[in-house]
Amino acid sequence: MTQTPSGDARMVQMTPYECWQQLDGDNQIARVVWAGQDGPAIIPVNYAVSDGALWFQISHDSELGRGGTGQRVLVEVDHADPASHAGWSVVITGTAAFIDAVEAPDILRDLRVWPSGPRSVCVRVDPDEVSGRRLMPRR
Amino acid sequence: MTQTPSGDARMVQMTPYECWQQLDGDNQIARVVWAGQDGPAIIPVNYAVSDGALWFQISHDSELGRGGTGQRVLVEVDHADPASHAGWSVVITGTAAFIDAVEAPDILRDLRVWPSGPRSVCVRVDPDEVSGRRLMPRR
Repeated sequence: MTQTPSGDARMVQMTPYECWQQLDGDNQIARVVWAGQDGPAIIPVNYAVSDGALWFQISHDSELGRGGTGQRVLVEVDHADPASHAGWSVVITGTAAFIDAVEAPDILRDLRVWPSGPRSVCVRVDPDEVSGRRLMPRR
Repeated sequence: MTQTPSGDARMVQMTPYECWQQLDGDNQIARVVWAGQDGPAIIPVNYAVSDGALWFQISHDSELGRGGTGQRVLVEVDHADPASHAGWSVVITGTAAFIDAVEAPDILRDLRVWPSGPRSVCVRVDPDEVSGRRLMPRR
């Protein structure tokens, strides 16, 4: 890990390996950002990680679903600990491919999506770039 | 609150008043999204709410700082409870005005920003739109 130019010795860049390790936690929420019709849009999603990609499910009639496959997206996952003022944030940028459910990995089929209702579109985010920053605990 | 078209009876739209109530919690982290040079960018920030606006501080040499005042931003704050699979997400879209520190509200001066280092730019997000969704607990 190398120090970021933020001026805080507690803020360090995470390696891609560390980023994937953090993404691979249970019950974490990812925030998906894309270029919507009226400017950037964002939704929280339940997600899974498999084969170097990040997966989630949406409804075909959601705004992201209507935009179709191949959209550029940014996905952010973070954690913050109020007690120690520590935390981390991982950002993936990539392309959102809409995949047939039969081709989705088992881990996505097993994913417990909190809202009910139909989510027929499996989305695989193929990352172009993975970056992360960690804020170390206060001493 | 009215039901959203997500197909889940537990998912309800929040009123603007409810959104501001949720934003006004302690130790919450906001995620600021803007149009960066290489596509959408996102950072987590400590923030405060005052006078119908959302405030945070950045470094003048950060990417958002270098973009200057008047940029369009989206700010998201959420909460997720793994035990009950409940949560909420509030999104503000608006303009990020860079404000002299002397004109910033007391609540921003009192805000405990977790990373140390200089953050000389006070940012006031003047909202054009505030929206939120709440996922009610499982029964």
